[in-house]
Amino acid sequence: MSDASSSKFLNRKQVNETLSRKITIALDAMGGDNAPVEICKGAYEACTQYEDIEIILTGDTKRINACLTPHERIHLQQASEIIDPDEHPANAIRKKKDSSLRVAMEMVRHGDAQGCISAGSTGAIVAGGVLVVGRIDGIDRPALGIPVPSTGNVSFMLDVGATVRCKPENLLQFALMGSVYSRKILGVENPQVKLLSNGSEDIKGDDTVLAARELIERQGALNFGGYIEGNEVFFGKADVIVCDGFNGNIALKLGEGLIQGLKSMLTDEVKNSLMAKAGILLLAPTVKKLLARFNYEKYGGTPLLGVKGAVLKAHGRSKSPAIVSAISAARKFIAEDGTEQINRDIER
Amino acid sequence: MSDASSSKFLNRKQVNETLSRKITIALDAMGGDNAPVEICKGAYEACTQYEDIEIILTGDTKRINACLTPHERIHLQQASEIIDPDEHPANAIRKKKDSSLRVAMEMVRHGDAQGCISAGSTGAIVAGGVLVVGRIDGIDRPALGIPVPSTGNVSFMLDVGATVRCKPENLLQFALMGSVYSRKILGVENPQVKLLSNGSEDIKGDDTVLAARELIERQGALNFGGYIEGNEVFFGKADVIVCDGFNGNIALKLGEGLIQGLKSMLTDEVKNSLMAKAGILLLAPTVKKLLARFNYEKYGGTPLLGVKGAVLKAHGRSKSPAIVSAISAARKFIAEDGTEQINRDIER
Repeated sequence: MSDASSSKFLNRKQVNETLSRKITIALDAMGGDNAPVEICKGAYEACTQYEDIEIILTGDTKRINACLTPHERIHLQQASEIIDPDEHPANAIRKKKDSSLRVAMEMVRHGDAQGCISAGSTGAIVAGGVLVVGRIDGIDRPALGIPVPSTGNVSFMLDVGATVRCKPENLLQFALMGSVYSRKILGVENPQVKLLSNGSEDIKGDDTVLAARELIERQGALNFGGYIEGNEVFFGKADVIVCDGFNGNIALKLGEGLIQGLKSMLTDEVKNSLMAKAGILLLAPTVKKLLARFNYEKYGGTPLLGVKGAVLKAHGRSKSPAIVSAISAARKFIAEDGTEQINRDIER
Repeated sequence: MSDASSSKFLNRKQVNETLSRKITIALDAMGGDNAPVEICKGAYEACTQYEDIEIILTGDTKRINACLTPHERIHLQQASEIIDPDEHPANAIRKKKDSSLRVAMEMVRHGDAQGCISAGSTGAIVAGGVLVVGRIDGIDRPALGIPVPSTGNVSFMLDVGATVRCKPENLLQFALMGSVYSRKILGVENPQVKLLSNGSEDIKGDDTVLAARELIERQGALNFGGYIEGNEVFFGKADVIVCDGFNGNIALKLGEGLIQGLKSMLTDEVKNSLMAKAGILLLAPTVKKLLARFNYEKYGGTPLLGVKGAVLKAHGRSKSPAIVSAISAARKFIAEDGTEQINRDIER
């Protein structure tokens, strides 16, 4: 049996062919605060932008048709249910078999799409990734990764919320997956991986992080740089930053909130000074450019790594530009065959 | 036996007397990046500012005398050793009996000072707090707390690095101590306490945070508001924010680093625009005012709660203004008798 046929995943030849043929992405039309209007708008815009993609919108076709600008490469797949953000994720995925999210994920499972995207409940996307799409052999828990803006290079941080509390083995697997993603998707030649901890000295870290450090060092396959502290995260001091989903979620949201808070405090302060008002006007384009680095609409999709397909979470508040970015990220992940790349590295 | 004599701590009458008599603070002259020069300078400045304090500088008296401006309320206590930041904290405290930090803590233990301050190794201060000064009965682990700047009221966050990984019971005790501190020292009438978590819904949280939530609710003595998410931390959405020392340390440093990163990115962007340069000039006083809210020199000392005395950690990079702030915070903590307040609440 050839290497190609023995794998559920594409081989290098097929990967090269991928870019020249259609990439099919299932898109949950009902997930997120602005569904289905902004999701449909994003799907249309992405199709006009990328000629090699086909999009299957899953959800209530009546509601979708009411707001969708038709496009020859946009198809609809009826799904009568919606998973609410406050439902128990795994239960919702199991019970709501005809939900827009589950239907999108079933398409990936059955090979009708190479990837899927949802702006719906993070928990349900993670649960669906594991229960419907399925884990890659050798990966016990999946991880959500995001690019972190910084003064230097962009760092890739994972997990930011898929696996709330991790064993050391999970952190090792995240490190391996993050390294592959950084190399293959972000184009970093020999990505340096660091563990997020409460200090840079060897004696720092809680039990899990300490054990993960030992595991990664013993495993030996990674360009491992030890610990990274919170204050170094935004200075590009690692290509891959590894943490558990609890810490990662808090860190991600803390950064988001601090920027919002600073904006709000600045607005307050500026009110009382004419000079400051003039300053803000002159500085506005620069600040806008700066804040764009932190704009989730730019990176759009957060990949769920460790599952058998390109599964991406779009921000819950996504408008059409964020959906276009998520589609663009999924397209790249599929074209570069991210899943198979991770699969190979884990097998090794 | 009267209430006063049966307690190792001051009673209310004595507390009231405290402000009219001298407050004695032992100050580690050798701890921190700018020791002993800036520490001595800070001690002198504080003494000119506050007439009710006496300061005992601990360390190499030769080196101290070389840079100290004499003051009648500044005294010296020889200590021949220094604890380095990279030493194992507990070992260093145990072995270096004549270190400037240990000598300062011994003064608190023996009642020669009501409080002590160090800008040295956080780990050694925590270890010394537990091993030398001693824990309050009913408190298993101490916590470092800091005021968090926000758009609204200041929140008090603990633990930011004393107890790296916590049991649910520790988080309950932190909640109780934080509530007392907020009420008695920060003057918040009925402080609302929240647990830092990865989401606001009840199903969120890792096992420890979930169990702590149940414990706090069952205990029933606190004004408990459930979970707080990372993005709400800088919006004054809780008076007291409780987390373990691992998360708290990462969160604290992440905030520090993000502000530094933003400053550095802004400087980079501004370089290329004359308009932006003019804007920065006009906006400078406002931005300075805004960033002052995040300046550790203003709050200076971080109290180590849960030990039998006022033990404060000053920032490692402290210059004299930060030392003055730390002395001011210690003075207030002693005058309000923070330790006894916590002691009473815990007993109850």
